[in-house]
Amino acid sequence: MPIDPKSPIEVTAFGWVPDFARGQVRDLRVRWALEELGLNYRTRLLMGERPASYYREQPWGQVPVYKEGAVELFECGAIALHIAEKNETLLPADELGRKRAIAWLFAALNSIDGPAMAYVSAAFFHVDQPWSAGASAAFGEHLTQRLARLGDWLGNKEWLEDRFNVGDLMMVATIRGSDILKHAPDNLVAYVRRGEARPAFQRALAAQLADFAPDPA
Amino acid sequence: MPIDPKSPIEVTAFGWVPDFARGQVRDLRVRWALEELGLNYRTRLLMGERPASYYREQPWGQVPVYKEGAVELFECGAIALHIAEKNETLLPADELGRKRAIAWLFAALNSIDGPAMAYVSAAFFHVDQPWSAGASAAFGEHLTQRLARLGDWLGNKEWLEDRFNVGDLMMVATIRGSDILKHAPDNLVAYVRRGEARPAFQRALAAQLADFAPDPA
Repeated sequence: MPIDPKSPIEVTAFGWVPDFARGQVRDLRVRWALEELGLNYRTRLLMGERPASYYREQPWGQVPVYKEGAVELFECGAIALHIAEKNETLLPADELGRKRAIAWLFAALNSIDGPAMAYVSAAFFHVDQPWSAGASAAFGEHLTQRLARLGDWLGNKEWLEDRFNVGDLMMVATIRGSDILKHAPDNLVAYVRRGEARPAFQRALAAQLADFAPDPA
Repeated sequence: MPIDPKSPIEVTAFGWVPDFARGQVRDLRVRWALEELGLNYRTRLLMGERPASYYREQPWGQVPVYKEGAVELFECGAIALHIAEKNETLLPADELGRKRAIAWLFAALNSIDGPAMAYVSAAFFHVDQPWSAGASAAFGEHLTQRLARLGDWLGNKEWLEDRFNVGDLMMVATIRGSDILKHAPDNLVAYVRRGEARPAFQRALAAQLADFAPDPA
């Protein structure tokens, strides 16, 4: 859906990030969920230093923040679940299917994102440190093992359970970065490509990229 | 509630772990949630190597697994939410209160547990590596900053929102380990102590500890 300044839904995103982060900032996950449901939204773009008041909206000073009427939320997992609960597009109506989708949503954000971010932090954010190489090797090995288990689970299935759900959305978004995906088995790479090929993902990605201001001259 | 072999709820836990892990294994979080609701449960205790079939129940080979009729779940966040949804004990009935509790549940498992586990891994699991000291210092600083933000949010409130909920339960369980808590401001330490003082937590902790076999002679 096009971004609509009159939408009742507001997503907070960054108005500028360095090149390496473009297409990776976490409001992408929320935009993607909204696109899957065909819901339009407006954006609030943060530029420069966050005011102190922003930490009352998002305790870590990150994005996204989500506003819809009285509902004001942070944490992309909670926001994705809130959106998914609107209908059956991302969350099956039967109890077991619903709970399994939520299990994968938590799996992406706890069991996969934790090891992935530890690796990225060691290998990239601290690349100039003497300990970076050793820590990257150890955390990279742990990430590889975790993604191998995930690949074992997936096997030759298309999605983690019997249909695309909010857990797949979050899992694909969590592991699609090239530095993470290089630790994944082939079937998981193909799974990510299936997710990225969805029109809703493509629209969300284009919308995030279009919102970034050019680099300062 | 006492453990009841006839309960319809089954929680999978480890039958033995080393001393440093006793009282920290993640089935504690599920036991605690069940105790808050006054629900009894039976335990299935894993000893030694997990059979290959276990990875179809828990993709990472960890605990807990939760079974209740047709519902079979992994990921302590998803299980805690499933339990919390049974009534208003851990999840307010009003939409906004419910969503905010879920936001903190995700915050504990993504924004706090990730940095905490990266630090613990660097500082303890890899303590014999030459890069451990450098990585521990960097990850410890990141954890300290994150917990400072959490402490700023909490301020002089008793709980993260206006009453104890499933988000507090998971947050307290996530940061109560002494190696993590030493990075926390004083008000957060007091918050953890309030959580640990709850009778339901005490019962859950005692039950986990009682399930461990003694160390091998």
